[in-house]
Amino acid sequence: MMNLRSKGLIFILSSPSGGGKSSLCRELLKTDSNLRLSISATTRAPRPGETEGVHYYFKTTHQFQQLIIQNYFLEYAENYNNFYGTPLEYILKLIDSGNDVLFDIDWKGARQIKAKMPDRVASVFIMPPSLKVLKERLQVRGQDAETVINSRMKLAEEEILHANEYDYIVVNDNFDIALATVKSILSAERAKTSRFSNKYL
Amino acid sequence: MMNLRSKGLIFILSSPSGGGKSSLCRELLKTDSNLRLSISATTRAPRPGETEGVHYYFKTTHQFQQLIIQNYFLEYAENYNNFYGTPLEYILKLIDSGNDVLFDIDWKGARQIKAKMPDRVASVFIMPPSLKVLKERLQVRGQDAETVINSRMKLAEEEILHANEYDYIVVNDNFDIALATVKSILSAERAKTSRFSNKYL
Repeated sequence: MMNLRSKGLIFILSSPSGGGKSSLCRELLKTDSNLRLSISATTRAPRPGETEGVHYYFKTTHQFQQLIIQNYFLEYAENYNNFYGTPLEYILKLIDSGNDVLFDIDWKGARQIKAKMPDRVASVFIMPPSLKVLKERLQVRGQDAETVINSRMKLAEEEILHANEYDYIVVNDNFDIALATVKSILSAERAKTSRFSNKYL
Repeated sequence: MMNLRSKGLIFILSSPSGGGKSSLCRELLKTDSNLRLSISATTRAPRPGETEGVHYYFKTTHQFQQLIIQNYFLEYAENYNNFYGTPLEYILKLIDSGNDVLFDIDWKGARQIKAKMPDRVASVFIMPPSLKVLKERLQVRGQDAETVINSRMKLAEEEILHANEYDYIVVNDNFDIALATVKSILSAERAKTSRFSNKYL
């Protein structure tokens, strides 16, 4: 009767910049051996230290556009004149073999994935404790110009408007508590009756 | 933006006899101060040590039947000529004040509660690792006659047939792991977007 889980799940984390999503993803991947990070394809040029197949799959714009036509992507987007997309086949291979796949994406990507694979997705919005705290974090962190911070805050406010499209909301006031809650969500999602194969019952 | 959860949730645990539900409930209540146990009304006579309002609300059969007519119960059932029921008002008071309420009931009760308050319920079925293990547990535990054990096994099999009506299935192979998973489910359910008041977003 045991251990008959059939497929993995797609675990989406989103948050505004400064929300703490990247640190949460890093810790999750470190402590959960069944979880794999989704690797995107991009037309952006590799930065120093970035490796093909580890950080990104690097594509030319022409290649990327061909792949769009071939329905190669689970989701894709254009940001600042660069394309970013998630190769569908790679994801299917992971979840078919029982791995859960972690996605570090924004609400637009989350929405595309949920529309295509509603039964396999669990989505979490990481909420800053307040806009004031978020601004303070951006100010401390980046040494960015005030205009950059203001444009990030505008994006953050837009992102937060979509929080209610997610299955869960975790307020990142205390990092350890937020991490524990995200881990609990992953654990609970794995115990969902709908995730078990019929043979189990 | 924080701490605007409006209402508590109804957390249902069910399992066949010997599944480990009672021990799980006891541990949950010990470690989670926001969780309260639902107290049933019953027409059964008090046993030595049982206190009115702590273990049960004791009623005469006539009183109980009047209360059924008055829609006093969230769910009720008759077992071995005794009535058992959950007073609705008491539960509403608890969840309105933000407490989560733990229910230790069978699939018939779970089904009644889910039908009446679908938005507030999270239900977990505690699954024995196998029928063989369940039988061994009943044999070790009870010093019961073989016929008693066989009738318990029959009830267990019927209960397991309804496992797929629950939101979650937790296999109780290892008690500590099962307890951690049940705690995770409670924690995840509290982080569900649908549990936050609109003001949050």
